[in-house]
Amino acid sequence: MTSRFDSSVYAHRLAAAATATANAGLAGLVISPGYDLRYLIGSRAQTFERLTALVLPASGSPTIVVPRLELAALRESAVADLGVTVRDWVDGEDPYRMVAEALGGVRPTVAVTDSMPALHLLPLADVLGSTPVLATGVLRDLRMIKDPSEIEALRTAGAAIDRVHARVPEFLVPGRTEAEVAADIAEAIVAEGHSAVAFIIVGSGPHGADPHHECSDRVLQAGDIVVVDIGGPVEPGYHSDSTRTYSLGQPDPEVAQRYAVLQEAQRAAVSRVRPGVTAEQVDAAAREVLAAAGLAEHFVHRTGHGIGLSVHEEPYIVAGNDMALRAGMVFSVEPGIYFSGTWGARIEDIVVVTADGAQSLNNRPHDLIVVPV
Amino acid sequence: MTSRFDSSVYAHRLAAAATATANAGLAGLVISPGYDLRYLIGSRAQTFERLTALVLPASGSPTIVVPRLELAALRESAVADLGVTVRDWVDGEDPYRMVAEALGGVRPTVAVTDSMPALHLLPLADVLGSTPVLATGVLRDLRMIKDPSEIEALRTAGAAIDRVHARVPEFLVPGRTEAEVAADIAEAIVAEGHSAVAFIIVGSGPHGADPHHECSDRVLQAGDIVVVDIGGPVEPGYHSDSTRTYSLGQPDPEVAQRYAVLQEAQRAAVSRVRPGVTAEQVDAAAREVLAAAGLAEHFVHRTGHGIGLSVHEEPYIVAGNDMALRAGMVFSVEPGIYFSGTWGARIEDIVVVTADGAQSLNNRPHDLIVVPV
Repeated sequence: MTSRFDSSVYAHRLAAAATATANAGLAGLVISPGYDLRYLIGSRAQTFERLTALVLPASGSPTIVVPRLELAALRESAVADLGVTVRDWVDGEDPYRMVAEALGGVRPTVAVTDSMPALHLLPLADVLGSTPVLATGVLRDLRMIKDPSEIEALRTAGAAIDRVHARVPEFLVPGRTEAEVAADIAEAIVAEGHSAVAFIIVGSGPHGADPHHECSDRVLQAGDIVVVDIGGPVEPGYHSDSTRTYSLGQPDPEVAQRYAVLQEAQRAAVSRVRPGVTAEQVDAAAREVLAAAGLAEHFVHRTGHGIGLSVHEEPYIVAGNDMALRAGMVFSVEPGIYFSGTWGARIEDIVVVTADGAQSLNNRPHDLIVVPV
Repeated sequence: MTSRFDSSVYAHRLAAAATATANAGLAGLVISPGYDLRYLIGSRAQTFERLTALVLPASGSPTIVVPRLELAALRESAVADLGVTVRDWVDGEDPYRMVAEALGGVRPTVAVTDSMPALHLLPLADVLGSTPVLATGVLRDLRMIKDPSEIEALRTAGAAIDRVHARVPEFLVPGRTEAEVAADIAEAIVAEGHSAVAFIIVGSGPHGADPHHECSDRVLQAGDIVVVDIGGPVEPGYHSDSTRTYSLGQPDPEVAQRYAVLQEAQRAAVSRVRPGVTAEQVDAAAREVLAAAGLAEHFVHRTGHGIGLSVHEEPYIVAGNDMALRAGMVFSVEPGIYFSGTWGARIEDIVVVTADGAQSLNNRPHDLIVVPV
């Protein structure tokens, strides 16, 4: 797979984004480097102090304002095939004025990408004479509903992380540290087809009770329950994210019984997924199973998050989110239970919403995986 | 060296930042994750969609607003030793209102860190009822003038990257690709004491003529001129950045002669450094030497940039910057010459401004380094 999709994919996205911008009554979008820029033109630009910005007017053709020094890096994007006007600038010129010009004189109101730093947003607002709004609303539908090429990339990522989880038991040896295990996992993540490591959580014993613990020098011991939550991007930048929980030796009966409830909660949430069901209903499905077993207070985070070019994006599967699910959405379903100071467990798969319900992109067993010690 | 300085360093910085805030007539600073947060409290937090923000009122004690899930990560910062109030929040609560409360009701005008994303800046402006300004001006003097602990970290980084450059000739073998050389350099950067690789440019032959080329599958050939610009952080996060230019075999006389002019330009700029001299005068010193030899148009970028927790920060050594240099500033001096399609060269050292002029943190020879082939 190459570092970007065919340019027709980006041409379609630019046209759809312009339409959504016009429908929202906005004059245009201003997109500095980040996931939105990558989504719209396949550029991985990462400039910070010098402004790079794609200017997409609601009507009229797009322009990219770019520091001359970054012109070469722009070649890896789809810009050359998209009819985007390139306006390069050198130190001493005013790139914010160039953005205003590229908007064609029509100023209020423009929408900016959510990652645009204050460093650029405040001078831009000054030149435009109005405070921009977030482009999130305009781009939400586009970015949330994955097209077939994106789903294919996410499927590839899911299969790759499944292969890593298949190898995790051999890394989990009592006497080794979480950090040593994480180093082996990092190597496996890349060896199994990811272009990089995005995150590795190895939460053993009491560390498993902290959902955001990463890894430490704690030494694994027989009897530990170990949460392993890992992922990375595959080209052109779509992420895997999967959690399994391992037991070093046979678990205590109470652990096994609580884990079985968690497994049922995860299954219930996945079963609830279907177009028209809301995000919070999926969250509630997991929560109800845990509550019925008296475990509600031990599930301390949302049930899931959308995934794609970024690891966390819309839709968020959380109480209060009454967004109706639609076919093509892709998100995690990852309930967990956490017992402070002792142990924790989580089960996470990435699922695609289809007309028939959820299709999982991860296919490793959901059981508490017993590693012989 | 540990991952942060002693907490007295941060206590001093917080007090100095509050004073600067009051002197600027501002109500307070709001600092989300990034270099400013790392500078002020030693936190490496990297949250994006959930707001983490240090609120430092011009008078009164600081507060950090932080997602409950990120509380554990906050422990590695100096917060516990600094009397900072911790206000954690969970999904569903309004962290922007917490920021407003932590400002103590006094609202206009607050300053925000330059990296605060639009995602947080726009809702914060909404709650505050006024558009923030950039904190850059308030924090500039603090961050630009390095204290002894920072200079020591930068000196350690400089010595580490010098050791890498000493090993570069062994990697530069005709028949190998730029990417293969870069992989060896990456290993050496970490082996010589950096905690990570920040950037690696291996620009061989015509690629050396693009100052922002990184590396490619181009195969090195005898006769190539190769620009190698490399750096990384050493704990607690201060960067090295040094460029040397290598010749695979004896260079053409014209190359050698032009390189000698570049070497003189770099020396002239470093000699010009002294408290009270302006940044643009240092830039001009390099430019004048090149202009006298008819090479002005081949020097296409600024002469240098400040360096510390970030690789590029103030002061920028560039035409138009009339900021007077002061003791404790640390920046690169890196003129280059670029001949499109054929070759390029650059020489870069990091220097500290002292009462007696520049002290270089890099000490490898400045000659065009001939690698026998």
